[in-house]
Amino acid sequence: MAGKLTPEREAELHAAVLDLLREVGYEALTMDAVAARTKSSKATLYRQWGSKPELVARALRCTQPVSLAEIDTGTLRGDFAVMVQHSDDDQMAKDTALIRGLAHAVHESPELHKALKDLLVDPEITGLQTILRRAVDRGEIAPDRPALDFVPHLLIGAFIALPLIEERSVDRAFLSDFIDAVVFPALGV
Amino acid sequence: MAGKLTPEREAELHAAVLDLLREVGYEALTMDAVAARTKSSKATLYRQWGSKPELVARALRCTQPVSLAEIDTGTLRGDFAVMVQHSDDDQMAKDTALIRGLAHAVHESPELHKALKDLLVDPEITGLQTILRRAVDRGEIAPDRPALDFVPHLLIGAFIALPLIEERSVDRAFLSDFIDAVVFPALGV
Repeated sequence: MAGKLTPEREAELHAAVLDLLREVGYEALTMDAVAARTKSSKATLYRQWGSKPELVARALRCTQPVSLAEIDTGTLRGDFAVMVQHSDDDQMAKDTALIRGLAHAVHESPELHKALKDLLVDPEITGLQTILRRAVDRGEIAPDRPALDFVPHLLIGAFIALPLIEERSVDRAFLSDFIDAVVFPALGV
Repeated sequence: MAGKLTPEREAELHAAVLDLLREVGYEALTMDAVAARTKSSKATLYRQWGSKPELVARALRCTQPVSLAEIDTGTLRGDFAVMVQHSDDDQMAKDTALIRGLAHAVHESPELHKALKDLLVDPEITGLQTILRRAVDRGEIAPDRPALDFVPHLLIGAFIALPLIEERSVDRAFLSDFIDAVVFPALGV
Protein backbone atom coordinates (compact mmCIF):
# COMPACT_ATOMS: atom_id res chain seq x y z
CA MET A 1 0.00 0.00 0.00
CA ALA A 2 1.48 3.34 -1.03
CA GLY A 3 2.54 5.60 1.84
CA LYS A 4 2.11 2.91 4.50
CA LEU A 5 4.35 3.52 7.51
CA THR A 6 6.68 0.88 8.88
CA PRO A 7 5.52 -0.67 12.18
CA GLU A 8 8.49 0.99 13.95
CA ARG A 9 7.59 4.43 12.61
CA GLU A 10 3.94 3.87 13.52
CA ALA A 11 4.93 2.90 17.09
CA GLU A 12 7.07 6.05 17.30
CA LEU A 13 4.15 8.21 16.23
CA HIS A 14 1.79 6.53 18.68
CA ALA A 15 4.25 7.03 21.56
CA ALA A 16 4.57 10.71 20.66
CA VAL A 17 0.78 11.11 20.65
CA LEU A 18 0.50 9.55 24.13
CA ASP A 19 3.31 11.78 25.44
CA LEU A 20 1.50 14.84 24.11
CA LEU A 21 -1.81 13.61 25.55
CA ARG A 22 -0.24 13.31 29.01
CA GLU A 23 1.37 16.74 28.65
CA VAL A 24 -1.50 18.85 27.34
CA GLY A 25 -4.69 16.73 27.46
CA TYR A 26 -7.05 15.82 24.63
CA GLU A 27 -8.68 19.21 24.08
CA ALA A 28 -5.36 21.03 23.65
CA LEU A 29 -3.78 18.32 21.49
CA THR A 30 -3.51 19.46 17.85
CA MET A 31 -2.51 17.62 14.70
CA ASP A 32 0.05 20.44 14.20
CA ALA A 33 1.69 19.60 17.51
CA VAL A 34 1.78 15.88 16.62
CA ALA A 35 3.29 16.72 13.21
CA ALA A 36 5.93 18.96 14.79
CA ARG A 37 6.81 16.51 17.55
CA THR A 38 7.14 13.57 15.16
CA LYS A 39 8.71 15.52 12.27
CA SER A 40 6.00 14.29 9.92
CA SER A 41 3.58 16.12 7.65
CA LYS A 42 -0.02 16.68 8.63
CA ALA A 43 -0.96 15.06 5.29
CA THR A 44 0.70 11.83 6.46
CA LEU A 45 -1.13 11.95 9.79
CA TYR A 46 -4.52 12.48 8.18
CA ARG A 47 -3.85 9.85 5.48
CA GLN A 48 -2.81 7.31 8.10
CA TRP A 49 -5.40 8.01 10.82
CA GLY A 50 -8.18 10.12 9.33
CA SER A 51 -8.80 12.33 12.35
CA LYS A 52 -7.58 13.31 15.79
CA PRO A 53 -10.04 11.00 17.66
CA GLU A 54 -8.92 8.01 15.57
CA LEU A 55 -5.26 8.89 16.04
CA VAL A 56 -5.72 9.00 19.81
CA ALA A 57 -7.72 5.77 19.90
CA ARG A 58 -5.15 3.92 17.76
CA ALA A 59 -2.28 5.27 19.87
CA LEU A 60 -4.00 3.94 23.01
CA ARG A 61 -4.71 0.66 21.24
CA CYS A 62 -1.01 0.08 20.60
CA THR A 63 -0.19 0.33 24.33
CA GLN A 64 -2.02 -2.94 24.84
CA PRO A 65 0.55 -5.75 24.97
CA VAL A 66 -1.71 -8.41 23.53
CA SER A 67 -5.09 -8.50 21.88
CA LEU A 68 -7.52 -10.76 23.75
CA ALA A 69 -8.66 -12.22 20.43
CA GLU A 70 -5.18 -13.74 19.94
CA ILE A 71 -5.17 -15.67 23.24
CA ASP A 72 -6.07 -19.35 22.88
CA THR A 73 -4.37 -21.74 25.32
CA GLY A 74 -7.01 -24.46 25.32
CA THR A 75 -8.53 -23.72 28.76
CA LEU A 76 -10.36 -20.74 30.24
CA ARG A 77 -7.97 -20.59 33.21
CA GLY A 78 -5.03 -20.66 30.80
CA ASP A 79 -6.49 -17.85 28.67
CA PHE A 80 -7.11 -15.61 31.68
CA ALA A 81 -3.65 -16.40 33.07
CA VAL A 82 -2.09 -15.20 29.79
CA MET A 83 -4.23 -12.06 29.93
CA VAL A 84 -2.94 -11.32 33.46
CA GLN A 85 0.69 -12.24 32.64
CA HIS A 86 0.75 -9.87 29.69
CA SER A 87 -0.57 -7.00 31.80
CA ASP A 88 2.17 -4.61 32.85
CA ASP A 89 1.76 -2.90 36.25
CA ASP A 90 3.47 0.35 35.21
CA GLN A 91 1.58 0.44 31.94
CA MET A 92 -1.78 -0.12 33.70
CA ALA A 93 -1.07 2.75 36.14
CA LYS A 94 -0.15 5.04 33.22
CA ASP A 95 -3.22 3.94 31.27
CA THR A 96 -5.49 4.60 34.25
CA ALA A 97 -4.21 8.18 34.52
CA LEU A 98 -4.56 8.66 30.77
CA ILE A 99 -8.07 7.23 30.61
CA ARG A 100 -9.13 9.35 33.59
CA GLY A 101 -7.92 12.39 31.65
CA LEU A 102 -9.84 11.26 28.58
CA ALA A 103 -13.08 10.53 30.47
CA HIS A 104 -14.01 14.20 30.43
CA ALA A 105 -13.08 14.67 26.76
CA VAL A 106 -15.25 11.66 25.85
CA HIS A 107 -18.38 13.40 27.10
CA GLU A 108 -17.52 16.57 25.17
CA SER A 109 -16.66 14.79 21.93
CA PRO A 110 -18.98 12.14 20.45
CA GLU A 111 -16.29 11.51 17.77
CA LEU A 112 -13.72 10.59 20.43
CA HIS A 113 -16.30 8.42 22.22
CA LYS A 114 -17.06 6.58 18.98
CA ALA A 115 -13.39 6.14 18.05
CA LEU A 116 -12.50 4.76 21.51
CA LYS A 117 -15.51 2.45 21.43
CA ASP A 118 -14.92 1.20 17.87
CA LEU A 119 -11.15 0.86 18.03
CA LEU A 120 -10.45 0.09 21.68
CA VAL A 121 -13.41 -1.15 23.71
CA ASP A 122 -15.49 -3.17 21.24
CA PRO A 123 -12.56 -5.24 19.84
CA GLU A 124 -11.56 -6.22 23.39
CA ILE A 125 -15.14 -7.13 24.29
CA THR A 126 -15.37 -9.21 21.11
CA GLY A 127 -12.05 -10.90 21.99
CA LEU A 128 -13.32 -11.64 25.49
CA GLN A 129 -16.55 -13.08 24.10
CA THR A 130 -14.52 -15.34 21.78
CA ILE A 131 -12.51 -16.66 24.75
CA LEU A 132 -15.75 -17.31 26.68
CA ARG A 133 -17.51 -18.94 23.72
CA ARG A 134 -14.63 -21.39 23.28
CA ALA A 135 -14.87 -22.25 26.99
CA VAL A 136 -18.60 -22.91 26.54
CA ASP A 137 -17.89 -25.07 23.46
CA ARG A 138 -15.33 -27.10 25.48
CA GLY A 139 -17.93 -27.59 28.22
CA GLU A 140 -16.05 -25.52 30.83
CA ILE A 141 -18.95 -23.07 31.25
CA ALA A 142 -22.66 -23.96 31.03
CA PRO A 143 -24.09 -22.24 27.91
CA ASP A 144 -26.93 -20.66 29.90
CA ARG A 145 -24.72 -19.39 32.75
CA PRO A 146 -26.11 -15.86 33.38
CA ALA A 147 -22.71 -14.39 34.32
CA LEU A 148 -21.53 -14.90 30.71
CA ASP A 149 -23.23 -11.62 29.78
CA PHE A 150 -21.49 -9.64 32.52
CA VAL A 151 -17.80 -10.50 32.17
CA PRO A 152 -16.93 -7.26 30.30
CA HIS A 153 -18.77 -5.25 32.96
CA LEU A 154 -16.81 -7.05 35.69
CA LEU A 155 -13.39 -6.44 34.19
CA ILE A 156 -13.98 -2.86 33.01
CA GLY A 157 -15.82 -2.07 36.27
CA ALA A 158 -12.89 -3.32 38.36
CA PHE A 159 -10.45 -1.07 36.49
CA ILE A 160 -12.58 1.99 37.19
CA ALA A 161 -13.90 1.15 40.68
CA LEU A 162 -10.58 0.25 42.34
CA PRO A 163 -9.03 3.75 42.04
CA LEU A 164 -12.28 5.24 43.38
CA ILE A 165 -12.59 2.88 46.35
CA GLU A 166 -8.96 2.27 47.31
CA GLU A 167 -7.17 5.08 45.48
CA ARG A 168 -4.83 2.73 43.64
CA SER A 169 -4.62 1.39 40.09
CA VAL A 170 -5.32 -2.18 39.09
CA ASP A 171 -2.15 -4.26 39.00
CA ARG A 172 -1.47 -7.88 38.06
CA ALA A 173 -1.95 -9.12 41.65
CA PHE A 174 -5.34 -7.41 41.99
CA LEU A 175 -6.49 -8.60 38.58
CA SER A 176 -5.51 -12.18 39.37
CA ASP A 177 -7.23 -12.12 42.81
CA PHE A 178 -10.34 -10.51 41.35
CA ILE A 179 -10.65 -13.10 38.57
CA ASP A 180 -10.19 -15.98 41.04
CA ALA A 181 -12.57 -14.52 43.64
CA VAL A 182 -15.34 -13.25 41.37
CA VAL A 183 -15.14 -14.10 37.67
CA PHE A 184 -14.48 -17.86 37.90
CA PRO A 185 -17.03 -18.52 40.68
CA ALA A 186 -19.66 -16.42 38.87
CA LEU A 187 -19.03 -18.49 35.74
CA GLY A 188 -19.15 -21.71 37.77
CA VAL A 189 -15.56 -22.56 36.79
CA MET B 1 -29.77 23.03 68.37
CA ALA B 2 -29.87 26.72 67.53
CA GLY B 3 -30.21 27.50 63.83
CA LYS B 4 -30.88 23.92 62.84
CA LEU B 5 -32.99 23.67 59.71
CA THR B 6 -36.16 21.63 59.49
CA PRO B 7 -35.83 18.44 57.41
CA GLU B 8 -38.19 19.95 54.82
CA ARG B 9 -36.10 23.10 54.47
CA GLU B 10 -32.92 21.03 54.28
CA ALA B 11 -34.42 18.87 51.50
CA GLU B 12 -35.40 22.06 49.65
CA LEU B 13 -31.86 23.38 49.86
CA HIS B 14 -30.38 20.06 48.72
CA ALA B 15 -32.73 19.93 45.73
CA ALA B 16 -31.75 23.48 44.76
CA VAL B 17 -28.04 22.58 44.95
CA LEU B 18 -28.56 19.58 42.65
CA ASP B 19 -30.55 21.70 40.18
CA LEU B 20 -27.74 24.26 40.11
CA LEU B 21 -25.13 21.50 39.74
CA ARG B 22 -26.95 20.14 36.68
CA GLU B 23 -27.31 23.64 35.24
CA VAL B 24 -23.83 25.06 35.68
CA GLY B 25 -21.54 22.23 36.87
CA TYR B 26 -19.42 22.03 40.00
CA GLU B 27 -16.71 24.53 39.05
CA ALA B 28 -19.19 27.31 38.28
CA LEU B 29 -21.42 26.62 41.31
CA THR B 30 -21.03 29.36 43.94
CA MET B 31 -22.35 29.66 47.47
CA ASP B 32 -23.78 33.03 46.37
CA ALA B 33 -25.86 31.32 43.69
CA VAL B 34 -27.11 28.72 46.19
CA ALA B 35 -28.00 31.49 48.66
CA ALA B 36 -29.85 33.47 45.95
CA ARG B 37 -31.70 30.43 44.59
CA THR B 38 -32.81 29.25 48.02
CA LYS B 39 -33.42 32.71 49.50
CA SER B 40 -31.12 31.94 52.41
CA SER B 41 -28.06 33.70 53.77
CA LYS B 42 -24.56 32.53 53.00
CA ALA B 43 -23.97 32.46 56.76
CA THR B 44 -26.70 29.81 57.10
CA LEU B 45 -25.18 27.74 54.30
CA TYR B 46 -21.69 27.84 55.80
CA ARG B 47 -22.99 27.14 59.32
CA GLN B 48 -25.02 24.19 58.11
CA TRP B 49 -22.55 22.61 55.64
CA GLY B 50 -19.13 24.15 56.23
CA SER B 51 -18.02 24.33 52.61
CA LYS B 52 -19.09 23.92 48.99
CA PRO B 53 -17.70 20.36 48.66
CA GLU B 54 -19.59 19.25 51.79
CA LEU B 55 -22.78 20.95 50.63
CA VAL B 56 -22.58 19.12 47.29
CA ALA B 57 -21.76 15.76 48.91
CA ARG B 58 -24.64 16.10 51.40
CA ALA B 59 -27.05 17.14 48.65
CA LEU B 60 -26.11 14.03 46.68
CA ARG B 61 -26.36 11.94 49.84
CA CYS B 62 -29.98 12.97 50.33
CA THR B 63 -30.97 11.69 46.86
CA GLN B 64 -30.37 8.16 48.10
CA PRO B 65 -33.70 6.68 49.09
CA VAL B 66 -32.34 4.40 51.80
CA SER B 67 -29.06 3.99 53.60
CA LEU B 68 -27.68 0.46 53.22
CA ALA B 69 -26.82 0.45 56.92
CA GLU B 70 -30.55 0.57 57.76
CA ILE B 71 -31.47 -2.56 55.76
CA ASP B 72 -31.81 -5.71 57.88
CA THR B 73 -34.40 -8.25 56.69
CA GLY B 74 -32.82 -11.36 58.20
CA THR B 75 -31.43 -12.85 54.95
CA LEU B 76 -28.85 -11.69 52.42
CA ARG B 77 -31.27 -12.19 49.54
CA GLY B 78 -33.87 -10.14 51.41
CA ASP B 79 -31.40 -7.33 52.13
CA PHE B 80 -30.32 -7.10 48.48
CA ALA B 81 -33.96 -7.25 47.33
CA VAL B 82 -34.76 -4.21 49.52
CA MET B 83 -31.71 -2.41 48.11
CA VAL B 84 -32.98 -3.03 44.56
CA GLN B 85 -36.63 -2.21 45.39
CA HIS B 86 -35.64 1.14 46.86
CA SER B 87 -33.64 2.08 43.78
CA ASP B 88 -35.50 4.46 41.50
CA ASP B 89 -34.81 4.12 37.75
CA ASP B 90 -35.27 7.83 36.96
CA GLN B 91 -33.22 8.83 39.96
CA MET B 92 -30.38 6.45 39.00
CA ALA B 93 -30.29 7.87 35.45
CA LYS B 94 -30.17 11.42 36.84
CA ASP B 95 -27.48 10.43 39.36
CA THR B 96 -25.37 8.82 36.64
CA ALA B 97 -25.40 12.04 34.60
CA LEU B 98 -24.61 14.08 37.70
CA ILE B 99 -21.77 11.83 38.85
CA ARG B 100 -20.31 11.82 35.33
CA GLY B 101 -20.29 15.62 35.49
CA LEU B 102 -18.63 15.52 38.90
CA ALA B 103 -15.97 12.98 37.86
CA HIS B 104 -13.88 15.69 36.26
CA ALA B 105 -14.29 18.09 39.19
CA VAL B 106 -13.18 15.35 41.61
CA HIS B 107 -9.76 15.17 39.97
CA GLU B 108 -9.37 18.94 40.11
CA SER B 109 -10.54 19.30 43.72
CA PRO B 110 -9.11 17.06 46.47
CA GLU B 111 -11.63 18.67 48.87
CA LEU B 112 -14.56 17.50 46.73
CA HIS B 113 -13.00 14.05 46.38
CA LYS B 114 -12.63 13.79 50.18
CA ALA B 115 -16.16 15.07 50.87
CA LEU B 116 -17.71 12.61 48.40
CA LYS B 117 -15.64 9.76 49.80
CA ASP B 118 -16.33 10.60 53.47
CA LEU B 119 -20.02 11.46 53.14
CA LEU B 120 -21.20 9.35 50.22
CA VAL B 121 -18.97 6.41 49.28
CA ASP B 122 -17.49 5.24 52.59
CA PRO B 123 -20.81 5.14 54.52
CA GLU B 124 -22.37 3.00 51.77
CA ILE B 125 -19.36 0.66 51.71
CA THR B 126 -19.57 0.37 55.50
CA GLY B 127 -23.32 -0.35 55.23
CA LEU B 128 -22.65 -3.00 52.60
CA GLN B 129 -19.98 -4.60 54.79
CA THR B 130 -22.44 -4.69 57.70
CA ILE B 131 -25.00 -6.50 55.54
CA LEU B 132 -22.33 -9.00 54.42
CA ARG B 133 -20.97 -9.55 57.94
CA ARG B 134 -24.45 -10.40 59.23
CA ALA B 135 -24.83 -12.91 56.37
CA VAL B 136 -21.50 -14.48 57.40
CA ASP B 137 -22.62 -14.57 61.05
CA ARG B 138 -25.85 -16.32 60.01
CA GLY B 139 -23.83 -18.89 58.04
CA GLU B 140 -25.13 -17.78 54.62
CA ILE B 141 -21.62 -16.93 53.36
CA ALA B 142 -18.42 -18.76 54.29
CA PRO B 143 -16.24 -16.38 56.36
CA ASP B 144 -13.21 -16.96 54.11
CA ARG B 145 -15.10 -16.52 50.82
CA PRO B 146 -12.69 -14.37 48.72
CA ALA B 147 -15.48 -12.45 46.91
CA LEU B 148 -16.45 -10.81 50.25
CA ASP B 149 -13.67 -8.24 49.67
CA PHE B 150 -14.89 -7.32 46.20
CA VAL B 151 -18.63 -6.64 46.58
CA PRO B 152 -18.21 -2.83 46.65
CA HIS B 153 -16.04 -3.04 43.52
CA LEU B 154 -18.71 -5.14 41.80
CA LEU B 155 -21.60 -2.79 42.54
CA ILE B 156 -19.75 0.50 41.96
CA GLY B 157 -18.04 -0.99 38.89
CA ALA B 158 -21.39 -2.02 37.37
CA PHE B 159 -22.77 1.51 37.76
CA ILE B 160 -19.82 2.99 35.89
CA ALA B 161 -19.15 0.23 33.35
CA LEU B 162 -22.71 -0.18 32.01
CA PRO B 163 -22.98 3.33 30.49
CA LEU B 164 -19.54 2.86 28.90
CA ILE B 165 -20.30 -0.56 27.43
CA GLU B 166 -23.98 -0.31 26.56
CA GLU B 167 -24.59 3.45 26.70
CA ARG B 168 -27.41 3.13 29.22
CA SER B 169 -27.73 3.76 32.96
CA VAL B 170 -28.19 1.07 35.56
CA ASP B 171 -31.85 0.45 36.32
CA ARG B 172 -33.61 -1.87 38.76
CA ALA B 173 -33.86 -4.71 36.22
CA PHE B 174 -30.13 -4.59 35.43
CA LEU B 175 -29.17 -4.34 39.10
CA SER B 176 -31.33 -7.33 39.98
CA ASP B 177 -29.99 -9.46 37.08
CA PHE B 178 -26.40 -8.47 37.88
CA ILE B 179 -26.75 -9.41 41.56
CA ASP B 180 -28.33 -12.78 40.69
CA ALA B 181 -25.84 -13.56 37.92
CA VAL B 182 -22.63 -12.38 39.56
CA VAL B 183 -22.78 -11.29 43.19
CA PHE B 184 -24.65 -14.26 44.71
CA PRO B 185 -22.71 -16.95 42.76
CA ALA B 186 -19.40 -15.25 43.60
CA LEU B 187 -20.41 -15.28 47.28
CA GLY B 188 -21.53 -18.92 47.01
CA VAL B 189 -25.09 -17.97 47.95
